[in-house]
Amino acid sequence: MHNYPLTAGVTLLLVLLMFGTAWNVGRAREKYGIKAPATTGNEYFERAYRIQLNTIEWALIFLPTLWIFAAFVGDRHAMIAGLVGLAGRILYAVSYQRDPATRGTGFMIGMAAFGVAGLWSGFAVVKALLGS
Amino acid sequence: MHNYPLTAGVTLLLVLLMFGTAWNVGRAREKYGIKAPATTGNEYFERAYRIQLNTIEWALIFLPTLWIFAAFVGDRHAMIAGLVGLAGRILYAVSYQRDPATRGTGFMIGMAAFGVAGLWSGFAVVKALLGS
Amino acid sequence: MHNYPLTAGVTLLLVLLMFGTAWNVGRAREKYGIKAPATTGNEYFERAYRIQLNTIEWALIFLPTLWIFAAFVGDRHAMIAGLVGLAGRILYAVSYQRDPATRGTGFMIGMAAFGVAGLWSGFAVVKALLGS
Repeated sequence: MHNYPLTAGVTLLLVLLMFGTAWNVGRAREKYGIKAPATTGNEYFERAYRIQLNTIEWALIFLPTLWIFAAFVGDRHAMIAGLVGLAGRILYAVSYQRDPATRGTGFMIGMAAFGVAGLWSGFAVVKALLGS
Repeated sequence: MHNYPLTAGVTLLLVLLMFGTAWNVGRAREKYGIKAPATTGNEYFERAYRIQLNTIEWALIFLPTLWIFAAFVGDRHAMIAGLVGLAGRILYAVSYQRDPATRGTGFMIGMAAFGVAGLWSGFAVVKALLGS
Repeated sequence: MHNYPLTAGVTLLLVLLMFGTAWNVGRAREKYGIKAPATTGNEYFERAYRIQLNTIEWALIFLPTLWIFAAFVGDRHAMIAGLVGLAGRILYAVSYQRDPATRGTGFMIGMAAFGVAGLWSGFAVVKALLGS
């Protein structure tokens, strides 16, 4: 892994994004008086909570793909995919919190980053298997 | 990681499974008219949503174990465990969507793949630590 | 990854913790008669369910950070951070189940382990990038 410093760097930024969305849920819990373990009762709290869960869902499919992309295609390629994905998910989080109806663009950018990294990795892994 | 092409391949398939269960939730959202951020209100939507969350839960304990298994035991071993786990979780998803009461078999297969990979990895890691 | 046996060992323990919190939800489901896919209806079941989800949330930010920490700082450092984090999260789970109001200490220990590993990794990755 120490051969992939760019992928490691962007991974830390993605971890920070997940941390930020979790932090936001805690803040919304206090602000709107939703005591744990409740997860409903206020529209804005529920948005913050959905943003966190959706970010986690995306990260769980993106991060393993990103590292396979780094290992089978390259560290720079993975960094670019990671930064595009990160930008998409920041946009997603900000739009969703304001108005759930506008979350589409950020979502699509995050999915595109995953799709490109996933398909490219798939080809590269198959190529590695056939070549060995 | 580029020394483990079989594990990388099966990881991409597991990522695809997670993506598929998430996609299914989106489809069920439209089909049954459950607007975000709501996650309740229709039995079939709730099943799709539980399948996604349960698949994520399983993947989160399975994927780190799988890669430790690959590194400390072998790429082929990890591929087999991964394919068995994948088959179990596909069966789980299909059965749960039809009838939650029938989800047991797929669940047990997925857990068995995790259990074997986890115990075997545990032994291999301890052996590596004692040998160093 | 086989160069990091201590990090691999502590990762398997963290996976075991996630498995344990999931197992607990299944037990609480039976004990309090909450049939899937329902996730509400009993205070103690809801606590077990929140503990599982919160443990997953933490593991998702901690595990990638831990491995970057191992690769860019060292296997022993990562093992120590992992064991501190594990201890914090066990305390968190036990306290939350008894009384949600007492979950703070374990939570802070888990977050401190993440914070130290994350910041230290950030510096180490930046140093590696500047040095290359």
